Order: sequence, then C-alpha cells, then structure tokens
Amino acid sequence: MPSQWKRSELDNNPNAPTLFEFVRRDDFVAREFGESAMLTRMIDFEIALADVLERVGLIPEPTASAAKENIKEFVPDMELIRECTARDGVPVPELVRQLREVAGEECSACLHLGATSQDLIDTALVLALKSVNSHFASLGKQLDLAFERMESEFGLGEVMARTRMQNAEPMLAKFRIKSWRRPLLSQLVRLESLRSRLEALQFGGPTGDRSRLGHESSEVSRQLASALGIRDPGHAWHAERGTLAEYAAWNATLAGILGKFGLDMALMAQMGEISLAHAGSSSSMPHKSNPIRAELLVSLARFSGTLVSGCHQALVHEQERSGSAWMLEWMLLPQICEATGASLNCAVSLANSVQHFGHSSKI
Amino acid sequence: MPSQWKRSELDNNPNAPTLFEFVRRDDFVAREFGESAMLTRMIDFEIALADVLERVGLIPEPTASAAKENIKEFVPDMELIRECTARDGVPVPELVRQLREVAGEECSACLHLGATSQDLIDTALVLALKSVNSHFASLGKQLDLAFERMESEFGLGEVMARTRMQNAEPMLAKFRIKSWRRPLLSQLVRLESLRSRLEALQFGGPTGDRSRLGHESSEVSRQLASALGIRDPGHAWHAERGTLAEYAAWNATLAGILGKFGLDMALMAQMGEISLAHAGSSSSMPHKSNPIRAELLVSLARFSGTLVSGCHQALVHEQERSGSAWMLEWMLLPQICEATGASLNCAVSLANSVQHFGHSSKI
Amino acid sequence: MPSQWKRSELDNNPNAPTLFEFVRRDDFVAREFGESAMLTRMIDFEIALADVLERVGLIPEPTASAAKENIKEFVPDMELIRECTARDGVPVPELVRQLREVAGEECSACLHLGATSQDLIDTALVLALKSVNSHFASLGKQLDLAFERMESEFGLGEVMARTRMQNAEPMLAKFRIKSWRRPLLSQLVRLESLRSRLEALQFGGPTGDRSRLGHESSEVSRQLASALGIRDPGHAWHAERGTLAEYAAWNATLAGILGKFGLDMALMAQMGEISLAHAGSSSSMPHKSNPIRAELLVSLARFSGTLVSGCHQALVHEQERSGSAWMLEWMLLPQICEATGASLNCAVSLANSVQHFGHSSKI
Amino acid sequence: MPSQWKRSELDNNPNAPTLFEFVRRDDFVAREFGESAMLTRMIDFEIALADVLERVGLIPEPTASAAKENIKEFVPDMELIRECTARDGVPVPELVRQLREVAGEECSACLHLGATSQDLIDTALVLALKSVNSHFASLGKQLDLAFERMESEFGLGEVMARTRMQNAEPMLAKFRIKSWRRPLLSQLVRLESLRSRLEALQFGGPTGDRSRLGHESSEVSRQLASALGIRDPGHAWHAERGTLAEYAAWNATLAGILGKFGLDMALMAQMGEISLAHAGSSSSMPHKSNPIRAELLVSLARFSGTLVSGCHQALVHEQERSGSAWMLEWMLLPQICEATGASLNCAVSLANSVQHFGHSSKI
Repeated sequence: MPSQWKRSELDNNPNAPTLFEFVRRDDFVAREFGESAMLTRMIDFEIALADVLERVGLIPEPTASAAKENIKEFVPDMELIRECTARDGVPVPELVRQLREVAGEECSACLHLGATSQDLIDTALVLALKSVNSHFASLGKQLDLAFERMESEFGLGEVMARTRMQNAEPMLAKFRIKSWRRPLLSQLVRLESLRSRLEALQFGGPTGDRSRLGHESSEVSRQLASALGIRDPGHAWHAERGTLAEYAAWNATLAGILGKFGLDMALMAQMGEISLAHAGSSSSMPHKSNPIRAELLVSLARFSGTLVSGCHQALVHEQERSGSAWMLEWMLLPQICEATGASLNCAVSLANSVQHFGHSSKI
Repeated sequence: MPSQWKRSELDNNPNAPTLFEFVRRDDFVAREFGESAMLTRMIDFEIALADVLERVGLIPEPTASAAKENIKEFVPDMELIRECTARDGVPVPELVRQLREVAGEECSACLHLGATSQDLIDTALVLALKSVNSHFASLGKQLDLAFERMESEFGLGEVMARTRMQNAEPMLAKFRIKSWRRPLLSQLVRLESLRSRLEALQFGGPTGDRSRLGHESSEVSRQLASALGIRDPGHAWHAERGTLAEYAAWNATLAGILGKFGLDMALMAQMGEISLAHAGSSSSMPHKSNPIRAELLVSLARFSGTLVSGCHQALVHEQERSGSAWMLEWMLLPQICEATGASLNCAVSLANSVQHFGHSSKI
Repeated sequence: MPSQWKRSELDNNPNAPTLFEFVRRDDFVAREFGESAMLTRMIDFEIALADVLERVGLIPEPTASAAKENIKEFVPDMELIRECTARDGVPVPELVRQLREVAGEECSACLHLGATSQDLIDTALVLALKSVNSHFASLGKQLDLAFERMESEFGLGEVMARTRMQNAEPMLAKFRIKSWRRPLLSQLVRLESLRSRLEALQFGGPTGDRSRLGHESSEVSRQLASALGIRDPGHAWHAERGTLAEYAAWNATLAGILGKFGLDMALMAQMGEISLAHAGSSSSMPHKSNPIRAELLVSLARFSGTLVSGCHQALVHEQERSGSAWMLEWMLLPQICEATGASLNCAVSLANSVQHFGHSSKI
Repeated sequence: MPSQWKRSELDNNPNAPTLFEFVRRDDFVAREFGESAMLTRMIDFEIALADVLERVGLIPEPTASAAKENIKEFVPDMELIRECTARDGVPVPELVRQLREVAGEECSACLHLGATSQDLIDTALVLALKSVNSHFASLGKQLDLAFERMESEFGLGEVMARTRMQNAEPMLAKFRIKSWRRPLLSQLVRLESLRSRLEALQFGGPTGDRSRLGHESSEVSRQLASALGIRDPGHAWHAERGTLAEYAAWNATLAGILGKFGLDMALMAQMGEISLAHAGSSSSMPHKSNPIRAELLVSLARFSGTLVSGCHQALVHEQERSGSAWMLEWMLLPQICEATGASLNCAVSLANSVQHFGHSSKI
C-alpha cells in the first residue's frame, strides 16, 4: 500500500525512538548507559590503571604521564569501534588498539596491562550504576515527600477500604497512603546497603586470577578502585553475578511497589474517588479524563517483573566468562534501570497531581 | 571522579544507542516501529477511512478528496505530538487535531469519524508487523539455504553425538544439522498460518461496538481493510489480544530454536569440532578466536524467552481498553521482534561462516 | 514455639498437598502425569515395540508374545524405581531392568531394542497430553456453552463500557461477553491444529539417528505409532522442542484469556454490576461476598504467564539430549497444564454462577 | 489404546507425586507448607491471641484459658475445611467456625477477635518461612564445608580456564572453586539480614488499620509476636509485599549461583576433567556416566529464575487485600522454596561426590 500523502519530511533514522519507547524512557539513565559515557569510563579506567602501575613500579616512570599526555586529545573512531564490536562482541580490543596507537610506541605496552575486556566493561557498568543509583535515591526522596504531602493533606479523611475487590469498611485515608510510602522507604534503605556491595571494582585479568601482575595485584586493585571512586572487593567477580541479580530484583521490587500505587489510583479513578490534574484526553470521547500515569505505573511494574526473570537466568554464567550470560545482562540491566527511573518520575508526577482524594476534604 | 581526558567530542544524545544495544538491534525492525513509520500509517488510516466514508455515503462528496488534497503536504509537528503523547498516553488526539486543522473546517469532521485512538494504533501496529513478518520470512529462507549448504557440505561426515553432556556415539553430522533446520522450517510454516489471523484491521470506535457508524459499519470496515491491504476480521478485537500473545510466543520459539543452534555451535567450538571465519578477538589473549555469534544466539533466545512472559501478562486486558495492558505490549512487542530479526541475521552469518564441521572433510 | 494444642491427629505426609495447592489443582491432569499413568504408558510402549519388532522380523517369533505373557502380571517395584530415578535422572533404566527380569532370559533382549529412555518418556508424555487435550477440549465446550447462555440471557441489556479505567459509554452487554467468548473459540480451534503436530511418537534410539534398527526403522516407527494411537512424524524429535514450547504458550494464552474474563468480572463485582451465586465469605466481615473464582482466574493467568517463560528457556536444548533443558520441561509442563485445567473449571463455574449482569434484566 | 498388561496394582491417587516431581522436591520444605503444619500454626495464632487479649484485659478472665482447655483435643474436620476453602478462597472462616464451636458459646467470641483471615495465613506463612530459612542456613553451611573440602583437596591443582567457551589459560583450580563458594557465602549472609525483616507478625484486622482493638492494638501485637517467636513490625503489612518479593529473589539468586556450579561441573564432565561417584546410568548406552545432579542444578536455577518473575507480578496488590495477587504468591512461593531446598541438597551431594577435579592429583 503506497502512502497517499507526502511523508518525506519524517525522519527515517533507525536510531530514532520507536513510537512506543516513550513509555519506558528515562533520559538520565539512558545517557549513563550510552556509548559515549561508557567509553569515557573505559578510557578513564586505562589512564587510572597506567597511573597506578607507574606508582607501584610495574611500569617505568614517566610512561603513564606520557601516555596520559598523548591521550588527552584522543577522540575514538566510533565507526570503527562499532564495526569491530560486532565482530569481537565487545568494544575493548579496538578501543585499546586505538588508545595504544595514540599513546605512542613506548607507552602502548603499559595500557591495559594486567587487564581484560571484562575489567573495563564491568567497571564502566558499575560506574554507570553508581550514578544511576544516586539519581534513584534523589527521585525516591522526592516521591517520599509527595506521599508525605498527600498524607498531611488527605490522611485524616476517609476512603472505603476494599478487600478482594469488595467494599470492606471505611478507614482513614492515611492507611492506604502509608501502604505506598512505607515500602518505598524500606526499598530506599535497602538500596543503600546494596550499593555498598554493588559498586565495586572489577579487576582480574584474562581469567580473573590476577596472575599477570603477581604479588602487586592487590595493591594495584586497591589504588585503582580508590582512583575510580569505588570499592575494592579484594578479588575479581567476573563470573559471580549474584549482586547484579539482586540489584535487578531491587529494581523490579521498587517498580512493583509503585505499580501497586498506580493500580490503587486507577481503581480510585474508576470509582470517582480521586481527581487528578493533567489527566489524559481521548480522541473520540471528550468527556474522558484518563489516569494515564496510574496505568503506566502498572505497565512498568509488569515490565520490570518480566525482565527480572532474565536477570536471574544470567546467573548461570559458565566457567571464567560466559559471553552468552554476559550479553543477556546487557540486554536487560539498562532497561530495568530505565524502567525504574521512568516509574519514579511517573509516580512523583502522579502523586503531585492529586487534587482530591477519597471522601476527604483538604484539611 | 572527573574524567582525566578530553571527552567533549563524544556525542551525548540520549537517543543514541546504549553501548549494549547493538547485541539486540535489527535496523529493519526498528524502523518499522519508528515514530515516522507509525505516524505515516495512522495518517494513511485516516485518509483511507475518509475515502471509504465518502464512498458509502456517510460523508458528502467531495469531502474526502478535499481533505486528502489539503493533507497532501502535511508535516506533523513532532515536538507537540511528543509532548501531548506524554499527557494523553497516545499520539492520536494531537495528531488528529493537527490533521483536522490542516484539512480545513469543512473537512475536519469527516476525519476520525467512527474511529478511536486504538483503531489507529493497533492497525498501524498490524501494518508494521506485516512488513516485519515478510522480513522474517525472507531471512528464514536465507537461513534454511545456509543449513542446506551445511548439510550438503558436511552432512555425511561424523560428529560425536552427546547426550547429557557426555559422549554417546558417533553419528552422521546431518542428524545434528537437521535438528536445527527442521524446527526452523516448521516455525516458518507456522508463521504463514499465524499471519492470516494476525494481520487484521482493528476498527471498532470508542468502545468497540462500531455503533457510531450504524448499519454501514461492516461495509466501512470491509473496504477500509481492503484499502490498507489487510484482512477484515468482521469485528473489533481491541480487548482480545490472544493472537498478539501467540505471535510473541512464535518469536520466542524461533529465537529459542536458533539458541539451540548457537549453543551447539559454541559447544563444538569448545571441543575444537568446528572452525569459524570472522570469529571474535580478545583484548588480552591473542590466541583466542571467540564464537561470538554462537553465544549471541543463546543470549537472544534467553532474552526472548524472558520477554514472552510479559506478553502473556498483557492478556489480562480489563474491560474495553486497558491502558496498562496495552502499554505493556508496547514495551515488549517491538523488542521481541527486534530480537527475532537479530537472531535470524546472526544465525545466517554464523551458518555461513562454518569452515570445518565435525570430523568430516568437505565432500 | 511449641504448639499449645494436640496436633498429632493431623497427617504429616510430605506428599499431602500444601495448604496453597488447591488453587492450582486439576485432579484429572494431575492423574495423567502421575507416576502410575506414566509408567503404565512406558510399559505399553515396550510391549507394543516388541510386537512390532516381531512383526517386521527383527526378533524371532514368538518372543514378543512370550514376553507379553510373562509381563502380564508385572507390578513394578516402585520403591526401587524411585530410588534409581534419583540416581539416573529417569526411571527407565531400572524399569527396563525389572521388565527384562520378569520377561525371562530369552525374551529380555527384545525389550527396549532400538529405543532409549527419552523415547519412552517423551512418548508417555505425548500420550498424557493427548488425554489432557481431550479434557481441555471438552471443558472448553462447556465454557463456550456457558458464555452462550450468558449472551442469550443478558446480552441485550446494557453495561457501562470502560476504557482506561474510566466510564466510556453504555453498550450492549453482548459486546463484553463476546470479547471473552470469541478468543476462547479461537484458541480451541488452534488447539486442534496444534494437536496434530504435538501428539507424535518419539522414537530415535540413543542418539536419535535410529541407526540400531537399520533400514527397518521407518517401518517400526510407523507401526509403533499406529499401535499407540498417535502420529508418526517420520523422524525423532528428541532435541527439537519447539512444538512443546508452542503448546505451553497455548496454555498460557488460554489462561490469559480467561484471566481477562476473571478481571472483568471482579471489576464488575466491585462496581456492583453483577451478582454471583456461591461467592466466598469472610472470617471478619459477614456482609462480604467475595468473587473468589474471578480473582483466581487472574492469578492463574499470571501464573501461566510466568511459567511460559521457562518453557521457552527449555528450547535451548544442547546436542542430542540436554538433561538440564529436559528436566526444566518436567518442572513446568505438567503445572502449566494443571493451571489450564483449573482455569477452565473455574471459568465454567464462574460463568454458570452469574445471577445478574450489567443493567439488564433477564430476557 | 487399552493397556496390554495388568495395571490395577498401581496407585491412582491424584495426590501421588507426578512422575516428574522428584526433580524439584524437598520434603522438609513441602512439609512446612503442608495443610497440617499450616493449620496448626493458625490454631496456635488463635490461642496465642486469646491469651494476649485476656492479659491486656480485652476479654474477661478466664475466657482464654477455658477456650484453650476446650480446644486442646480439637481435630479439624479437614474434609469440610477443604470444601469451604474452595468456596471462600481461604480455610480460615470454616476453621474459625469449627474452633468456636469446640471452644463453647462463652469463649467463642474471644477467638479471632480483631483478626482476619490474612492475619492467620500470612503469619502462618512467615512461621513456615522461619523454619525453612533455618533449614537453608544449615544446608548452606554443609555446602560451604563441601566447597572448602574441594578447595583443600584440589585447589592447588590446575584447570584450564575458559572464557567464551574457549580455552583461555591454565589457572589454579581454587579460583574456579572460589567462584562458587564466595557467592554462596555472600547469599547466606544476605539471608540473615533479610530474615530480620521477613519473619514478622501480620496483624491488622479486616482492613489492616487495627481499629477493632483500639488503643490496645499495639500492645496486643507486641505480645502476640513475642508469643509466636517472631518480630513485631509495628503495623500490618497485608498489602505491602516487597519483602516477600525480595525473599523470592533471594531464592532465585541462590539457585542461580548453584546453577553456575552445576553448569561448570557438567562442562568439566564433558571435557573429562572431573569424575563423580554415583553418576547416572543410561538405558541404552552402558558406557555412559551421566552428571545428573550437575544438570539438575542448571534446571533448578532456570526454574527459580522463571518463578521469580511471577513473585514480582504479585507486588501489584490492589487496595487492602488482593485475592488475585495473594493467590499468585501461594502458587509460587512454596515452589521456589522447594526448589532452593532441592538445589542445596543436590549441590551438597554433587560437591561431595567429586573424586577427581581438573588436572590435579589429590594433595
């Protein structure tokens, strides 16, 4: 069917978002997992490593500073990196090749010494998660404040409590609001404890035994972690993905909790028990005011609850590096984080849009 | 940690692909679900509908042709559409508003008559899937040819059959190759039968009862489907998503079948039983030749096998239109199709890269 | 905490159902997958195979009839079979050992000739599914009748159509009922077509190449399938699990469709738009009448929508027999079938309990 | 197809395990979730509650002791409870009715005062989990010991490290063993912290606001928790299921970690790098020694990784009690715990069966 109108003006870029993507986007999170941010972190890793190697005497002075000087103006050839990534499965071999070329013959050997692709990629991932987690913590605080406001405005009014989709008894509105707020706070606390395990340097070399740097490896690892602003776990964790699965599940739990908030709000909207500012309009029924954000919270909860399964499948990570389990993580982890960001943003906006709640007048 | 090198050159566009996205990309599929292609189809829907309404006498001649003439040069204001989509949950109210403005006062009422947002979006989705399915059928044929070639080159050699990860008995290589090829063919046949149900017009109006067009609704639907090149199912299916779930499962089944191919190849690579052209290189171990595409097929199978769950959760589609179940589909369906495209591309490339297979010499 | 009352009377049998199991039970389905029914089918397989082998001349007359005579009174030593199953991963080696012992020295070699464990287990599974599918078809017909009754009793009354959890417009009740009934019928038709591929003999010998029976293998397979009342697919499918995944997805799709019915009913119950006979009572609120079966349909839909993911993970079935992928199927397939049976039973009972529906009086 | 042999001896009990169930059984866990153990805990709850109510003066002395005396010999009519459970969705209304009948007219009102079904069921669940968690902690310790033994016996030998399914470099065997042991220990530590939040009394009354007991409710809750040996969380958590999802994910993470152990062992078995005592035998290939337990660990990891998704779907728990989300938990939580128990048992047995590991001789 040839189109009956002039459509040439519309951009046909395959990197443009799909029509449907907006529902699960979080630009902040997307940017942290972007090519640019991730490659930047890998280059930072190489420079920090060279620094440390020089400091502990594994490479002669002033190799690292010379390399750093030479690399200062380095701009990766992204086309070539993308091409090689398709072949190698990771951008690192080509990135390191380009870096070495720029660093110059004398310095090139000191780059990537004792490291392997996974050290760069996992560490860059952890650095991305560190930034993403601060973003979540901050959005979480905003949401808690919005719930607090709801509680103080509407909490002493009444709502009809419902159990098994049936009227139970009227109760104070604050009990329903608390059932959203309390789990949020509990998951924010859990995030802090999880971060202390998650945000840890990956450094192990080709097989993870750190054998290439001999007895100095622990010291290198300690200083490298410190330079990058993350924890030194004392060993490589390349094939131990439990904490990543735990983190994925944290994301899905948070999204699930916000999904309950969304569903409760959608049901209250159906019963006419709330009114919301900025609700959605319909193309065919002008009288309607659709609780889009409430519904979206439910969708995102089910989406995250779906992805979390694959994050656990990725635990079956064979031998010293499983390409298949590792690439499965890549397919899921950025998305589940984006969904969390989108959920938090959506929940803040929904909570702040409440104009009327339950059978209560504002106090 | 401030970066120690100049990174300003790297693009910081949030729409840029994430570092990890390349593993699950299929540009053809992405483009079909893109904003541009989807909005184009929705405008086509409106024009075709106006044509049909005029033909059956529900709007006066020459309203439709006048509207078409006015719309011919229409370029949507995408910024505004995106903004309204975030509020309305769908781009249709704003798109129709812009179309009506361009169509002119006399013609504006004939646009979107008897239709609703979901009619446009679901039909545009179906048209996207129609194109995607032809793409899959064509890639499937390429893969079948590649398997046929493998069978004729290597099939009469021997491989060690293995059951439960243990040597069983030597067998002809063709038996293993057939265990990849036969299910592929079977799923390609299944696709054809599925397409005949899937690629069907959605047209129901606000609640799906087609009541706004009265007795003419069946005729309008018949002609509209024909103009758009898809089947007329005889009723709206807005809240009946079973065939979409079946289609999602078809995708996951195909990816799963190719995942078996990938895992078998990876295991043969581990045992030194195959050699592959264009294998991946390592940043730290120059001797390695990594079977990246074989591993990627396994990842994609597990990824699709994850997403398929959410596609079934979306079946619980309440009442006459579930925003939450519908948006959940949007989060999953384009991705599962992209993964199928990526799997097929990857499998073709892997099959064509085999240089040596089993204990067979080329015949 | 020691219990404060006499609890010795309560049965402490580990095989007793858990307190929670009743929600997903279907006794008919459970029995078909039971030890007893499955071992019976495996013995039938062995006897039918011996018959065929004798008929085509691969074993001397009257070995098969002698074996059959000797086995006639055979009662397996279940304790021993269970014990060996824990070691071997399958009951077949010990079952065949017991059968051979009973068959007598001269006949023993003719049992299991050309076969392997998987031939027995997969064929027994298929025979179980054949019976289960007839059960589903019959329950499906009952449900369709119940929907038809609802449609004729209440269909010309009105319900408030709701889109995105908001009142849309009143519509005839039949449109909502049809949105439950039509997908049911469509899935019942799909089941028939699926059965013709699913209910097929598995017969391949140790590696699936049927080499142990030489040129007679096709004839043996043909006659064996006919004796067991299933289709002969013309080849072993031991490592090709696509149709099983498709079948699992069929189950989840059906449960999902019934989940929509359940959710719609629960929402109507909340709005007071239906009344149901035999609703549930509450321990603390005597006024309540809980739509238990409506809720249960939603739970079962989400449960099946969860399990279906693992059924697709099981497609990554390495080499000629994957113990891990195969055992994963065992963990999921019987359950997903039980859930379908439970859903169908629950839906029939719910549909038949409707006393009042929408704003319609009985016609 | 009528069976050709006498099969009447085989038990046809629908409660008998299915043929396939043995792969995911853990009798200890099954028993804790059994009808008997669960109802016992609910009766304990009622008695403890009556005691506390008497102590705080909400019921007159000696009502509680009289009730306790009367109930002492109580044996529930299980048939009737099962029947009513099917109607009410929970066993509590009928159990309480029977208890009240036995307690006698004067005492009957003091039973279940201020409580609701969910208080009994959730608390009984928590008590079951408490016992199950101690079981896991103890099995976890056994497994850690077995890994320690492997490390001390084989750790200084060599294995071929493999990355992306290819030989990387030889490394000390202890590095691979540590990649199994370290995550196990980390998850056992995590369990302890999780237990302190999970093992908490549920007590809220019909809607969770504890309004029926007025100002005494906090004191009742405190004393009740203490009598039952669990924590008093200070509020009802009936609609806040985040910690249960977190617990489900803990189970899947543990199973996933053991799945990596299993897959590594299966791959080593394929390469001939380990030998195992008590491996499985084949019905058709006497030379084979199948690493059944290694494969089973992989299956269980994928099974738990499947179920965990549904446990997150159950977070979308609408209003003050969602029958559908709650019953979904019942379908999944006991199973995921059984799978953890089965995984731990299987891993202990596999680790203890290693006779030879890598290229190392015992030290």
